[in-house]
Formats: sequence, structure tokens, C-alpha cells
Amino acid sequence: MDDGNDNDDRNKTNMLEENETMRVLAENVAFYAGERVTVMGWAYHVREMGQVTFIVLRDRSGTVQVVWENAVERVKEESVIRVDGTVRQDARAPGGYEIYALQMEVLAGPCDRLPFGLNGPAPGLDTMLRHRAFSIRRPDVAAVFAMQAEMVHAFRSFLRQQGFTEISTPKIVAAGTEGGAELFSVRYFDKMAYLAQSPQFYKQMMVGAGYERVFEVGKAYRAETHDTSRHLNEYLSLDLEMGFIKDENDLMDLENALLEYMMNYLAETCTKFLDTLRVKLSSVGKIPRMRLSEVQAILEKMGKSSPEGNLDPEGERLISKYVRESLQSEWLFITHYPASKRPVYAMPDADNPGLTRSFDLLFRGLEVTTGGQRIHQYHMLVANMRKFGLNPEEFEFYLDIFKYGMPPHGGLAIGAERLTMQICGLANIREASLFPRDRDRLVP
Amino acid sequence: MDDGNDNDDRNKTNMLEENETMRVLAENVAFYAGERVTVMGWAYHVREMGQVTFIVLRDRSGTVQVVWENAVERVKEESVIRVDGTVRQDARAPGGYEIYALQMEVLAGPCDRLPFGLNGPAPGLDTMLRHRAFSIRRPDVAAVFAMQAEMVHAFRSFLRQQGFTEISTPKIVAAGTEGGAELFSVRYFDKMAYLAQSPQFYKQMMVGAGYERVFEVGKAYRAETHDTSRHLNEYLSLDLEMGFIKDENDLMDLENALLEYMMNYLAETCTKFLDTLRVKLSSVGKIPRMRLSEVQAILEKMGKSSPEGNLDPEGERLISKYVRESLQSEWLFITHYPASKRPVYAMPDADNPGLTRSFDLLFRGLEVTTGGQRIHQYHMLVANMRKFGLNPEEFEFYLDIFKYGMPPHGGLAIGAERLTMQICGLANIREASLFPRDRDRLVP
Repeated sequence: MDDGNDNDDRNKTNMLEENETMRVLAENVAFYAGERVTVMGWAYHVREMGQVTFIVLRDRSGTVQVVWENAVERVKEESVIRVDGTVRQDARAPGGYEIYALQMEVLAGPCDRLPFGLNGPAPGLDTMLRHRAFSIRRPDVAAVFAMQAEMVHAFRSFLRQQGFTEISTPKIVAAGTEGGAELFSVRYFDKMAYLAQSPQFYKQMMVGAGYERVFEVGKAYRAETHDTSRHLNEYLSLDLEMGFIKDENDLMDLENALLEYMMNYLAETCTKFLDTLRVKLSSVGKIPRMRLSEVQAILEKMGKSSPEGNLDPEGERLISKYVRESLQSEWLFITHYPASKRPVYAMPDADNPGLTRSFDLLFRGLEVTTGGQRIHQYHMLVANMRKFGLNPEEFEFYLDIFKYGMPPHGGLAIGAERLTMQICGLANIREASLFPRDRDRLVP
Repeated sequence: MDDGNDNDDRNKTNMLEENETMRVLAENVAFYAGERVTVMGWAYHVREMGQVTFIVLRDRSGTVQVVWENAVERVKEESVIRVDGTVRQDARAPGGYEIYALQMEVLAGPCDRLPFGLNGPAPGLDTMLRHRAFSIRRPDVAAVFAMQAEMVHAFRSFLRQQGFTEISTPKIVAAGTEGGAELFSVRYFDKMAYLAQSPQFYKQMMVGAGYERVFEVGKAYRAETHDTSRHLNEYLSLDLEMGFIKDENDLMDLENALLEYMMNYLAETCTKFLDTLRVKLSSVGKIPRMRLSEVQAILEKMGKSSPEGNLDPEGERLISKYVRESLQSEWLFITHYPASKRPVYAMPDADNPGLTRSFDLLFRGLEVTTGGQRIHQYHMLVANMRKFGLNPEEFEFYLDIFKYGMPPHGGLAIGAERLTMQICGLANIREASLFPRDRDRLVP
């Protein structure tokens, strides 16, 4: 490729499947047997056998074989090509159909050695992430994010059906929601601000604003310095909040139905991606619920101790294994966390002093959700803030709506990358983020 | 309301319309004439007439009148109430049906004087924004964001139908995409980073990664210090990018069809909100396209001069008025902007030296979209960076994918708040953002 002189080529390319030159996607060529079509995409694999060049063309839908006799130029792998040709049925071709090329045009050839081959085994994670856009050309990587997009779509669809309104709340905020020092600071003109750790306060405010049921798909930020396979510093949070609940059980009922819908939707619509990833999805069923103290007692019997009021990653894996074997579930709700380990807004459980109406959800050994009922009474919330050492005056913007009639409510958040990771069986959460942000990674 | 003692009430509330106590939404009471139902929501308006209290109850669906004889307590406005009662047809009731209360329970009463009344005229914008969650209880404010949610939904639906994949790209970045100093800086561990001005580089990379057609609904940040009625420092950007285009006309064709779909979708599904807002939506039709030079010449004839290679807000309003009157269109594509006024990645127009294959879209006098074809040739892009005084080495993460076969491509971005503002006829863009961020506003 050279500067300037490929402007001429541009006018020969086209966009829509519907237009005059009839671009056909790879997955649809079988419908055009005997007809002349145009295909466009990347030269995924190129083999020269004597006078004949075989090119596997890859586009956004999949691949199709192109047969080019008496090639006038060499086509390098990963060139962007446009092929006009005739669709032929041929049992030897992958998929049973191939395109006999009549015209071949290279729209953009690679101008450097490829960082790694796309057909063979993948290089290490670091190389994959460094050349992120290139590595996504691997169908087994592309499938992860295509599936993720459908997963998020299913999240939205279900909640819209249930009367939820989608919201978009600020990510530059004046104060953290989860406490702690894990905040990224932003220079906001002459003030100091932070990146939102979650839309917690805002989604609660929107329940009180009268929408009752809201959800948000947005970024959340945690300035955690530790470098693990299951933490990202910027992640996609699938948040929901709803009013007029009885207690946290309503939320678990909702999430159970939501996940059932999402997994069934993926199983039905993403067979291509799931096959590429060699993933099997099973029905969610009725998710078991166990108290944290019960979980800790089971682990104790297995010789595994737990941190106070919580589980560690090893504990999460062990209890998931136990539940899979004894209750045939890949999912587990853990309930009744102590107030000392939950945020200031967690609703105390009046029947179990010291505990809260909160829960976590484990999936295949990893926490993918935190949720619970929230305090909706203004005076109780102010008192709890004081107990937590927070100054209620700094949270006036949040407390404001609690003064004017706030319904009983609660919500939850699902980490999109964590759920993706567990669905796809990925070893590292960075593989579930298009452009992961971690301790050392700001590019690409 | 007091601390603690309202836990008992909680167990009497409920969540799902489907469950045993049969909560019915206000908009659906007519279907239950003669039956006993439960309604829950806010006491929007309370009138006491002798022994009878009339309460207009507001929930997420709308309002319904409740008639309570021999009330045992006074219900304050904006209390959260639960009413068990019988649905009666009564021509005098708004909507023709009302609920004759058998039981009334206050789930959460206001514990402070309301900042302003919700039934009368709205207070000033500043007060409305200070008590944002409360002001959204006004149906005319709630309708804006309910409509906005549907608008974004329609954007997604159309693009999914056209084979686009939704992506989520990082908002913490190492370098700006649009140049200039209008970047918010973030302390990222021991490095300096920035908030993304747009997903521009990332969406282009995803086209090259093989998805071909991608879109993103995400936050974008501009550290502009000026305080106008049409700028926000954090806004919701509706972005798309697509490969294998012929030129910028393909993008305008797509956006024309997209907007037609979105406006028709709103006109069909949001009649309730549009009526509340007193908004009429007309069909988009074929959007006229005019060159910038042509627009400037028309303005010149009207005695209005323009800044070099651009329009000012007054010019945008005047040309929109002209086009509405002469071409009966509320929309206008302006094309052929000079390279000197467009970003480094804008595709030069080989037929018109010095100009680019870019465009803006005006709607009712305001720019709501910027778009165009991008440079897809690696060497041309590197050369252009140098011409713009940028160091290509700093953009290696972006340039990487251009080395390995990048199809001709382009895209556009729609400012969600701007489009909302113009659809709803709002005077200030802050009214189109749930929690606007501007020069002085970090809370709520």
C-alpha cells in the first residue's frame, strides 16, 4: 500500500448487501449457488497449488473458500480483498460451497510482517493484548465479545420486559459510594473529583425519582492495586435497582429469572459463537440459597477456614464444587452477610441482629454479583453513616431524595467481564475485556 | 418516619404485579373494574373534602385517583403509600376509574418540607438540578428521560438489525483522540491518563479487528471551560463505525435510515411521553445535503458571515430555518469540511483538494452529529499525523491495526443529550442529562 494512490480503489468498494454490486456475506453464499456475487473481507488463509490459489476469505459472518485460477498477483494473508465470482457447490470446499473468482482486488494489503499467525495456536496473553485488535481477528477471540454483546443485550431485553427504565448516570463524582481509598482521582477544573466505583447512589435516587425500576450498563472504576486474574480497574457493570420489594428474596427471584433468560437466550442465539468457544450452557434452574454462616461451616468441615464475614477465592471455588456435586447447581446465592462487611446502605436484618439483607452470587466458583435490600428510611441511613464514620453532610445530594418518601428497594450488580469469563471458561478476566485496564496497562 | 420501627411495615409491601397481593399499575386499573387490587406509589396530590380524602397516586406508569372515606390519618403529599381497594368506574374521576380504598398504609412519609411543589409551575433550572431526583417526580421531567431511554433503545435496535456489534471501550486512555487541551486528567497509579473524548480510535480498531460494523453507547468527556446551553462536560455519545463503505455518502444514507427508524419508533411507542411533553415528531424523509461552502454562501446573502471552515451557532440556526422553509426539512447534512478544521483521521477528498469526506448533521438548528470517512491507509495516516504535529510513535497502539489490512471505513457520533434536547424542545442541554456535569456542577 502506498499513500494516496489507493483512493482510486475506494470507489470500487461498496457497503450494503442491498446495493448494486450485491455484496454477500460468507455465511450466506450457499443461497446464491450458480449466481455471481461479490464477497469482501480478509484473506485469512492463502494456499498456492500450481496455477490455482485457494483463499479462505473471512468477513464478519464467517469464512468462505475462494478459488482463483491464473492469479495475476500474490495475495498476502490478512489483505483486505474484494472478490467478484460465481458461487459453486463443491463437496471438497469447507461448508460445501466456494467462490470461483472472476475478479480479485486488494483493497488494503498488510504493510508489515504480521505480529503472529492467526491460524495456529495463540501466543501468550501479553502479546495477544498488545496487538488486541489484531488478535480479535482470531475467530475464537472474536466469539468472546460477540457473545458478550448478546449477553448484555439479553440483560437489557429481560429488564425492559419487566418494566425497567435504562438510565445513564455520571462517572465523574464528588465522593465514592463504597468507601475505602480505591478511587481514581480526576482533576475537574479547579476541584478534585473521582471516577465512580458504581452507580449505586444514582440508581437508588432514580428509584426514588419515581421510575421505581431502573438499570444501567456502564463503566465502573476501582483503583485496586493488586494484580489478579479476576480483577480489572475499569469494568462493565450490569446494574439494576427496584422499588416496592418485600425483601432481598424478591431480588434473588428476579436475578434467578434474569439469568435463566440470559443463558437460554445465549444457548438459542449464539450457537455459532458457543461452538467456536467449545462452551456448553445449561439451564440455570432454581438457584440454591445458603447463609454465609452455613457455607463457612461446610468449608470448615472440609478443613478450609474463611476470613471473618466473607469467603476467599479458594473458599468460593470449594463451595461451588460442593454445590455442583450435592445440589447439581453451577450457581449459588450466599445470604446474610454481616453488617460490618457490607456497605453503609445495606439494610440490617431485623430478624438476625448484626446481619444484613444482602447476598452474593457465585457462578462456577467465582462471585459474579453483589446485591441486597437497601436502607430506605432517611433517619436510619443518616445514623448508619455516622456509625460508619461518614459525614452525612457530604452525602446530602444522595440523602436528599430519602427525605421525601423513598419506597423499600434494593438492587444488584453483575460484573459483565466476570460473567463472560465464567461462561467462556477463560483463565484470565483480561480475556473478557476488549481493552483491559490493569495496574500496568493503559494501552492499547 | 422513625428509625427501626418501619421494618415491620416492610413485610406488608410487595414487588411483582404477578404475586399474591396483586399489585396493579395505575395505567392498568381500568382492566380491574369491580375487583379488589393493590396500588403502590406516591401521594401526588391530596385533597380533603369533609369526610373524604381524594389522593392522586402516582406510580411509574402514571396516576390514578384514590378515594378514602373516614381517613384515620392525614396523608402528606409525596408519601409512599400502599392502597388496597376496589376499582370503581366513575365518570368524574380522571381516566374514568378510581380506587375506593379499603386499607391504606404509609410506607414512607416525607420527613422534611418539600423543596418545591410538584403540581405547580417548575422552579428555576438551578433548583430543579439541585434537587434532581425530586424534580424528576414531575411527569414532564420524567417523560424526557423515559423518552431518551427509548431513543437509545431504537438506536441499538436499528444497528443490530444492520449487523452491527455493540462494543464497550475504555474511558481511561493514554492519549486524546481529537487533539487540543480539552482533556480531563486522571491519576492512574503512577501514570497520568485522560478521560476519553470519544471512542474514535477504539471503534475504528474494532472495524479492523473484523467486526466490520460496531457501535457503542458510552460516556465521552470534554474539559471545555465555556458555559453554554448546548455543552456538557460529560455526555452520552451514540457512536458507530463501519467498514467496506464507498465513501461518506454511505454513512449519510445509513444515518438517514437510522434517524427515520428512531423517530418513527418514538412516534409509535412514546405517545404518552410525547403528549406530556407536547412534542410532535414528523417523519425524517430524505435529508438534504449541502456543501459547507454552499451553506456559507447562502448565509452570506442573508448578511451573516461565518468563521473560516465552519458555522457558528447563529449560522446553524439561520441555515436550519432556511432549509425548513425552502426544503421542508428539519434536518440538514453539511458536507465537504476543510481538512484544516477536521481531525487528523479525516479522509481527504481526492476530488476536492483541501476538503475532507466528512459531514455534520443539523437538527432544528443544532449540530447533533459529526461523521465522515476515515483514512484507512497506514502510510497516509502516519503522514497526516506528522502534518498535524503529532508523533506517530505515541499512537502506535492505534496505528497497529492499520498495518495489517484495514478496510475503507467511516462512522459518526450522535450526542444523545443534544438529540433529546431538540426532540423535546428543551432550552438547556442540562435538562436532557439526568445528572449534568458542567464547569461548576459535580453534585448531585
